[in-house]
Amino acid sequence: MKVSILGGGGFLGRKIAGKLAQDGALGGRKLTGLTLFDVVEPPKPAASFPVTALAGNVVDLPPAAIPADTDVVFHLAAVVSAAAEADYDLGRRVNVRGTDAVVDRCRTLGTRPQVVFTSSVASFSADQNTILPDNTRQIPGNSYGAQKAIAELILADASRRGFLDAVSIRLPTVVVRPGRPNKAASSFFSAIVREPLLGLETELPVPDDFAVWVCSPRRAVDWLLHAATLDTSQMGLDRSIDPPGISTTVAHLLQALDQVSPGASAHVKRVADQTIYAIVSTWPPAFEALHARTLGFSAHEPVLDVIRAFIEDDLEATKADRAR
Amino acid sequence: MKVSILGGGGFLGRKIAGKLAQDGALGGRKLTGLTLFDVVEPPKPAASFPVTALAGNVVDLPPAAIPADTDVVFHLAAVVSAAAEADYDLGRRVNVRGTDAVVDRCRTLGTRPQVVFTSSVASFSADQNTILPDNTRQIPGNSYGAQKAIAELILADASRRGFLDAVSIRLPTVVVRPGRPNKAASSFFSAIVREPLLGLETELPVPDDFAVWVCSPRRAVDWLLHAATLDTSQMGLDRSIDPPGISTTVAHLLQALDQVSPGASAHVKRVADQTIYAIVSTWPPAFEALHARTLGFSAHEPVLDVIRAFIEDDLEATKADRAR
Repeated sequence: MKVSILGGGGFLGRKIAGKLAQDGALGGRKLTGLTLFDVVEPPKPAASFPVTALAGNVVDLPPAAIPADTDVVFHLAAVVSAAAEADYDLGRRVNVRGTDAVVDRCRTLGTRPQVVFTSSVASFSADQNTILPDNTRQIPGNSYGAQKAIAELILADASRRGFLDAVSIRLPTVVVRPGRPNKAASSFFSAIVREPLLGLETELPVPDDFAVWVCSPRRAVDWLLHAATLDTSQMGLDRSIDPPGISTTVAHLLQALDQVSPGASAHVKRVADQTIYAIVSTWPPAFEALHARTLGFSAHEPVLDVIRAFIEDDLEATKADRAR
Repeated sequence: MKVSILGGGGFLGRKIAGKLAQDGALGGRKLTGLTLFDVVEPPKPAASFPVTALAGNVVDLPPAAIPADTDVVFHLAAVVSAAAEADYDLGRRVNVRGTDAVVDRCRTLGTRPQVVFTSSVASFSADQNTILPDNTRQIPGNSYGAQKAIAELILADASRRGFLDAVSIRLPTVVVRPGRPNKAASSFFSAIVREPLLGLETELPVPDDFAVWVCSPRRAVDWLLHAATLDTSQMGLDRSIDPPGISTTVAHLLQALDQVSPGASAHVKRVADQTIYAIVSTWPPAFEALHARTLGFSAHEPVLDVIRAFIEDDLEATKADRAR
């Protein structure tokens, strides 16, 4: 089985690559090739099968990014939420035209690869007291969410036409992201756990009782790998999945942080930010996620485990990165 | 007030232009200019204000198609359903990139024109026994519908950002269309009334009990003109409207035809067509259309009046066209 990861240098892309390299197989089939593609050449994990890394822009997708005989494409390449809001043209180019480029490459291949796409909870809008059913209409409150909803439509139509076989996973806010704060409006949800664990101060732009739909990196990777070998004949025209994340609050995250590292939450400073709030307050804090359970997407672990997993998986590498 | 009609040579574009020329005003404001744009230079109606006609492709939209100080843009330029299904690239280029071009031109102007967009019932899929509420998710069963749903998302986001002020009307199948059969999969719904009235035979590709959501050209024009001066502050993030069409069946249309022109339905031959059926059978036959009523979109007239209006408005011109 041959796999390509577009956005293979991002934190989820690297984790998926690492897991594939470690397992040597996907869905019970042996891996025979892995291609990693990103704007900067992604690092290659040690593996028992050939791994290729290349750099480029997803809009001008080089054919080598999805070689012939590719079975699975993880399409994670994206401009994140606050960046897409700040630069309309950039967001449209990467998030929409980039998806068109993936469709066009798959169409040329003629072998109907399975395409796993990371859509987002940001493609919905709802207030803080809503639980969204699976068939909810996407009315995005930000350009990133609009572009993700558009990409879902593009991929569902391309699936119907037989160009590819898409599964779009509407990822919750991923907590705890390793690395540094980024331009995602949701960046602070990870920072309020990660930075205190590094002994660093960080800012909280929303109230403590702010509710958010989250998932851990471990869970996100597990879902994306499950989507890669899912039998899509169970899905029909609708190729989009609300995965079973968990609904939590800032207060709950900080409480769990203090339980793992007593007093750590003292590093979190309350500094209201209306720009950030305007974006994240339109994201629904909870989903029913019934269809995902039927399709075998794994259930989520509690918040405490999420923080412990960050310490186990990513804290040392994050420390080393900051020391550089 | 200055108005532009993109797709000004199409049958709805011509009817809107004719109505504006006749009224000399829109929403109580005097018209001071009308620009008609289409792939072939549209005919100019006689008017008391300056009318400009120009030809071009909406994807490479010339600035003159939406001049500075334009107040209202009717964006009707599109590749129709069966054509978009037959040619994926053409549909994407005109229906999606064309809408991006409209957004980009309006953005350059900086005056936030009101953009009335013709979306479609084809952006939904549902079986023959469904009545769709206003907040139904769009899961298109054809590329035309996917492209229309995408364009709605593009225009809603552009409205939120202040580039323009969009109202997207999801038009039912328009019956009775004047002129000749075209590449819309729904073309036969008009042909089974129009062709018999011309004394010509025509083919019916679906069963007689096939249900369909329709509107008359008069009603469509009335709705689009209402949308052009609608106060969009009542709409919020959601800029899409299911207008109050009527749900009818082929049998009901033919019965009304015979009532107006006894025996006319004998010109209709039953010739099943699976390609046409596959497209139109995914279009919902009925909508609740509650929001549209709240926003003042006019109620629909009965089917019998629809056929009489075709005879009054379009039969002579259609005959003359066929004689050419």
